[in-house]
Amino acid sequence: MTPGTIHGVGLGPGAQDLMSVRSDRLVRGARHVAYFRKAGRPGQARKIVDGMLRADVIEFAMEYPVTTEIPVSDPRYNDCLSAFYEACIDHLATLAHTGEDVVVLCEGDPFFYGSFMHLYTRLQTIAPVAVVPGITGMSGAWTASGAPITWGDDVLTVLMGTLPEEDLVRRIRDTDALVVMKIGRHLAKLRRAVAAAGRESEAWLVEYAAMADQRVTRLCEADAITPYFSILLIHGQGRRP
Amino acid sequence: MTPGTIHGVGLGPGAQDLMSVRSDRLVRGARHVAYFRKAGRPGQARKIVDGMLRADVIEFAMEYPVTTEIPVSDPRYNDCLSAFYEACIDHLATLAHTGEDVVVLCEGDPFFYGSFMHLYTRLQTIAPVAVVPGITGMSGAWTASGAPITWGDDVLTVLMGTLPEEDLVRRIRDTDALVVMKIGRHLAKLRRAVAAAGRESEAWLVEYAAMADQRVTRLCEADAITPYFSILLIHGQGRRP
Repeated sequence: MTPGTIHGVGLGPGAQDLMSVRSDRLVRGARHVAYFRKAGRPGQARKIVDGMLRADVIEFAMEYPVTTEIPVSDPRYNDCLSAFYEACIDHLATLAHTGEDVVVLCEGDPFFYGSFMHLYTRLQTIAPVAVVPGITGMSGAWTASGAPITWGDDVLTVLMGTLPEEDLVRRIRDTDALVVMKIGRHLAKLRRAVAAAGRESEAWLVEYAAMADQRVTRLCEADAITPYFSILLIHGQGRRP
Repeated sequence: MTPGTIHGVGLGPGAQDLMSVRSDRLVRGARHVAYFRKAGRPGQARKIVDGMLRADVIEFAMEYPVTTEIPVSDPRYNDCLSAFYEACIDHLATLAHTGEDVVVLCEGDPFFYGSFMHLYTRLQTIAPVAVVPGITGMSGAWTASGAPITWGDDVLTVLMGTLPEEDLVRRIRDTDALVVMKIGRHLAKLRRAVAAAGRESEAWLVEYAAMADQRVTRLCEADAITPYFSILLIHGQGRRP
């Protein structure tokens, strides 16, 4: 029997029509879809494809066993996630070995800070696996902001809000354009870092980019609480004839 | 009369089915399309949409008056390009004011090092203008490389090959994951910079990502000549349970 393929499909930043034509075709045609979510939540990837799936679709929700209950630095965090990913690929590879294709729904672009990568590296030697890139959440954010992110020779730095404060300050000071992701509960630290780097007046916070409740605010006017998927932007000011 | 809208439409990295559903719809429906190109060349953006345009489409090719004939540092370079962009927006705004929509074809994502930005900033106050994000060329490149670009808390730096060698060395040394664009005739300098930063064994060169002649090679095995649209990658090696 020809094995099926496990497709990691980039869904883009949130609006259904910002999915690529290839992703749209795979999502609408899929008999099997899989997606990550936090236990008890619908899951962001699954929400994006609402109304697009086949009537006879079979869904496989991969629920994270841990999110913030164990600190990332604790070895149990890695052990726990590793066992979880192994269980996920067992299920997906079994489907592929019975000849079924599976579409794994991925927010943004699968190879850019995505969870699918943890399945991809484990699946490579045991089942056919393919990746469809997507429009990143950061592209959705700078499009929402109404201003180009980079011009001419601008340097762009992409940072995670989870980094130590002193690293954030140093790198925010040393770049033309900036994107910070994974903000959530790191917002207060990030605000201090942006201020210490002297760039408060240039910083924008984009929440729910490309979604119905999209919101763009100056960082200095933003609320104290922001969703995990918020993105901070500083636009480059490079050469422009 | 209701004015038309000038749409800056991201086409993605090159394959037609990596265009978003929204871009695909706008491109196929357009009565007026415009695109940049070098004089005497078909133009990369126009090539991507080959076979997709309406039979009665009206095309407006915006031909750069200068590419490498005048150095960027010469004030005549900016003057020349500025006059060119003004002439382009005059034409586009005239169409919009007669009620016509125009689709401006943009490789990759319009707000990420794109030429459309030069029209966008000039058009904002004189005609309705809208932007559709696209999959970036760099997403196409790391997908082609078959390996994720960033994991966990990895820092990603995006540099232009046009930067001075010492800036390249310093920044290549100081990042987890790296993307370098606009390589072309800067390849020899970039190779020296990657070597000086001690990262030769990690560097990959991706040519024509997501196109028919896509090619992925280790930088140390790459030819001495590479197209302008080549992308250099160093993959991040961050946390992975």
